[in-house]
Amino acid sequence: MAVYTHLGAEDLADLISHYDVGTLVSAKGIAEGVSNSNWLIETDRARYILTMYERRIELDDLPFFLGLLDHLSAAGCPVPRTIHDREGRGWRDYDGKAIALIEFLPGVSVDRPTPGQAHAVGAALAELHHASADYPGSRSNDLRPRDWRDLFGRCGQDLTSIDPRLSGLIDRHMPDLLEHWPEDLPRTVIHADLFPDNVLMLGDRVGGLIDFYFACNDFAAYDVAVTHAAWSFDASGAHYRQDVGSALIAGYESARPLSPAERAALPLLARGAAMRFAATRAFDWLHTPDDALVTRKDPMDFARRLEFYAEAGDAPFAPAT
Amino acid sequence: MAVYTHLGAEDLADLISHYDVGTLVSAKGIAEGVSNSNWLIETDRARYILTMYERRIELDDLPFFLGLLDHLSAAGCPVPRTIHDREGRGWRDYDGKAIALIEFLPGVSVDRPTPGQAHAVGAALAELHHASADYPGSRSNDLRPRDWRDLFGRCGQDLTSIDPRLSGLIDRHMPDLLEHWPEDLPRTVIHADLFPDNVLMLGDRVGGLIDFYFACNDFAAYDVAVTHAAWSFDASGAHYRQDVGSALIAGYESARPLSPAERAALPLLARGAAMRFAATRAFDWLHTPDDALVTRKDPMDFARRLEFYAEAGDAPFAPAT
Repeated sequence: MAVYTHLGAEDLADLISHYDVGTLVSAKGIAEGVSNSNWLIETDRARYILTMYERRIELDDLPFFLGLLDHLSAAGCPVPRTIHDREGRGWRDYDGKAIALIEFLPGVSVDRPTPGQAHAVGAALAELHHASADYPGSRSNDLRPRDWRDLFGRCGQDLTSIDPRLSGLIDRHMPDLLEHWPEDLPRTVIHADLFPDNVLMLGDRVGGLIDFYFACNDFAAYDVAVTHAAWSFDASGAHYRQDVGSALIAGYESARPLSPAERAALPLLARGAAMRFAATRAFDWLHTPDDALVTRKDPMDFARRLEFYAEAGDAPFAPAT
Repeated sequence: MAVYTHLGAEDLADLISHYDVGTLVSAKGIAEGVSNSNWLIETDRARYILTMYERRIELDDLPFFLGLLDHLSAAGCPVPRTIHDREGRGWRDYDGKAIALIEFLPGVSVDRPTPGQAHAVGAALAELHHASADYPGSRSNDLRPRDWRDLFGRCGQDLTSIDPRLSGLIDRHMPDLLEHWPEDLPRTVIHADLFPDNVLMLGDRVGGLIDFYFACNDFAAYDVAVTHAAWSFDASGAHYRQDVGSALIAGYESARPLSPAERAALPLLARGAAMRFAATRAFDWLHTPDDALVTRKDPMDFARRLEFYAEAGDAPFAPAT
């Protein structure tokens, strides 16, 4: 969470002069985004988020991400539109980095979602899965079970320094996930990272779904599993909030009922979702320099979720009675 | 520049419920403040800056700072008002830390001020000096020449690791500053840190003066010297921008003409202002942990200004002809 690049008023005014958005009135660097810098920009007409992509690696995927915002927004999803410049481009080069201007959406991220909020998020996710099905862009998921295994492999013996239990958990579940990961569930473009941070709530209503930088083509039910793991626990993962988890699934099914095959896969997919975040967090834990401007996140928060899902079986995903 | 504390939607909604400001609509952690965390808060009525004071040391001065905002705002200065809670308090305790809600002001901070902008800032500083003269609060300046000397003393031999020229510069100027620092110039409450970062410009107009956390009772002319040093150079201090410096002084004098004694003192005060920022930056350079969420600032940027002022004598402060 940081702003990595300084942009003064002159730089910002020059940047937005390439867009038909009015005159700059205010600009604040905002503490969001891990590898991007973001500014909340106000003009005499409206507010926008200006994002600077600090890493080269993301550039190739930018047309996919920014086009997806436009596609979902046009379909009525609460997703910020990409603002195109006067030449029609969705992003511009600025000093060797890509920048994009996107719509500002109101709303606040909750820490302790209510069942009502979880229901609304589930429904919004289902609508997103409907709307993204005919998005022409495609991007493969580069964080699938093999990739988690490889990330853990690159951590090696250092995993023990995070927590001595972590290696055992990986040994116990990783082979099963690799062997039994589904191959033929319904696919669409998924968000793949729909944590409360990435949902702007207005009371019980979803005001915005943001931060699509992990979006990819994969199983809709895997996205349900990721969202369930992200919303239905306290931060440490030690406590499952059944009312929230059930409301999330019920909300999802209010707009897109799960097929029997999807429901049957959810316990495994949820273990996988927990493993995916344990893997990236463990890797980042060991590879984030001490002077980085980001806060490291504890992989054990998701190791605990993994244990929960392994023990709970299909109970969290049983149809409402 | 960071947000040190996480506040979720529930925390923020609870916090602002103690104020008569409407319902929370949006909240963004903003990358401003060195020892504070700040959020740009929007309600259904207006926008505000929520500041959390992370360090205990500032608490005793909070009534001085927050009262000053109200005093200056009431006098017509472009300064954000402190929003008082339903019990009339200017700040509240939150989890052992003080938090305050202040008015949001539009405007953007410039990197390369124009003479027109410098003129406006000079005039706004003079108006601030008029308005603050009858502020009943008082706070002594804890960054006077003796304090700079002590800060350098605590850096010791490590100063050489910053730049081998730094010690010589201190030896050459510090005794003179200590011996000849004025004692009887006109006093008022000064901002003492009016860098471009702390001025929100709307074109050539000053939209807001912010960040009064160094404000104290001291010489008005010293504040002019600080502002001159902060605005009239490129960032490195290698290049003096005479048109900007002259416009700043002319703007100041358009609202508060300098007395002959003040003008005569300005060359020494400007050397002092440069020394003050060289001292705190050198101290911070050596004492900021590598993992701190702030960017260290180069003390040599102000060592170069010090050399400029020492060579230029009274030329930068001569009355316009």
